[in-house]
Amino acid sequence: MRYELYYWPSIQGRGEYVRLALEDAGAAYADVARDAGGMAAMMAMMDARTGTPPFAPPFLKAGKLVIGQTANILLYLGARHGLAPKTEGGRLWVHQLQLTITDLVLEVHDTHHPLGPSLYYEDQRGAAKKRTEEFWNERVPKYLGYFEQLLQENGSAYLTGRKATYGDFSLFQIVEGLRYAFPKRMKRFERKIPGLIDLHDRVAARPNIKAYLSSDRRIAFNEDGIFRHYKELDV
Amino acid sequence: MRYELYYWPSIQGRGEYVRLALEDAGAAYADVARDAGGMAAMMAMMDARTGTPPFAPPFLKAGKLVIGQTANILLYLGARHGLAPKTEGGRLWVHQLQLTITDLVLEVHDTHHPLGPSLYYEDQRGAAKKRTEEFWNERVPKYLGYFEQLLQENGSAYLTGRKATYGDFSLFQIVEGLRYAFPKRMKRFERKIPGLIDLHDRVAARPNIKAYLSSDRRIAFNEDGIFRHYKELDV
Repeated sequence: MRYELYYWPSIQGRGEYVRLALEDAGAAYADVARDAGGMAAMMAMMDARTGTPPFAPPFLKAGKLVIGQTANILLYLGARHGLAPKTEGGRLWVHQLQLTITDLVLEVHDTHHPLGPSLYYEDQRGAAKKRTEEFWNERVPKYLGYFEQLLQENGSAYLTGRKATYGDFSLFQIVEGLRYAFPKRMKRFERKIPGLIDLHDRVAARPNIKAYLSSDRRIAFNEDGIFRHYKELDV
Repeated sequence: MRYELYYWPSIQGRGEYVRLALEDAGAAYADVARDAGGMAAMMAMMDARTGTPPFAPPFLKAGKLVIGQTANILLYLGARHGLAPKTEGGRLWVHQLQLTITDLVLEVHDTHHPLGPSLYYEDQRGAAKKRTEEFWNERVPKYLGYFEQLLQENGSAYLTGRKATYGDFSLFQIVEGLRYAFPKRMKRFERKIPGLIDLHDRVAARPNIKAYLSSDRRIAFNEDGIFRHYKELDV
């Protein structure tokens, strides 16, 4: 089965967590909206309002299923491609961690859009500065400290054991994104999360991920995505 | 099996979506932190750092499993108590809708905490006012319009068909919460979502839910929860 991924064609965004899982699994997929006519196809799928219409991209067409919400797509792919444990408890545990990463991703987005997603960044610069301070003082230590502690405690190569899961790829992306958006702040912070940095490097070295990252399928970070670099927020 | 729910004892918050599912299912459970010594027990569970330590409440102890993240707990309970379809596609669909509700709940929280969860409301009143405007102008119509359209289209008693799912109970809670936090704004808005109001009433009339709502197990809304009533935000 060839999957069809539907996501905005010019950003990594939330689609990237799905792309990383598909790429590591070596799964066949089309990144639909990046092809000619793909954006129209994506909007038509959303407007069709039949079956299970998604609230927003990303969504994945897998045979007859249309699955929305990033973590939900990963729940589905994890079971199918050995990117999650086979036991119910293990499966729920990885999903729980992914949902915690989902919360973190939204807080990253809120650093530049604290007054809401419909206003421009330029119209909320002051609030963004305050939110970013709080993010780095309180939230980053809490979230990344949590994952760091898990890694330190389990003593394994990956977040939940010896085998990589989609949660590991998502944490790789978090490190990549924070490095892009906040290079100065992240540089200072990284000494507190050696396990997480180590995990990032291990994920980056996986053959399929490595090949993906150096391909043109990997879109570069930019200021339309979740992780945005604004100099005034990175002090 | 008697479940143990761990959540802050004085608010509905995110725990309420789990409580509603447990109550409708007639499941035996302890709301641990509301009993004497319960808060200490909850904090001890979080500090223990063994097994699958949750990032934050709510979490559910189900036999040997400790499951965190509201939507993940509902995924587990839905399969066990007939509160989700039996097919994989149906199960993913309800979970997808629940994750969209999760996003909405966070945006509700951000109306009073746009500059971050660690600061007091009193320290972010101006930003809260702006965010709340954007929330009611853009986000509420988008989210509730999406669910309203699903209800209008499927022509069934519940969100995904003839049988109630945990997603229906969560939408009931959204309507309840918006009515509490923003009575004026919600009163004006409700004529646009007749299907959702109808669903709310149908959920409220389910015998187990009805009994729960009039019991002292249902905590009253208050200004420590997700849905908070601040007069200046409800214009």
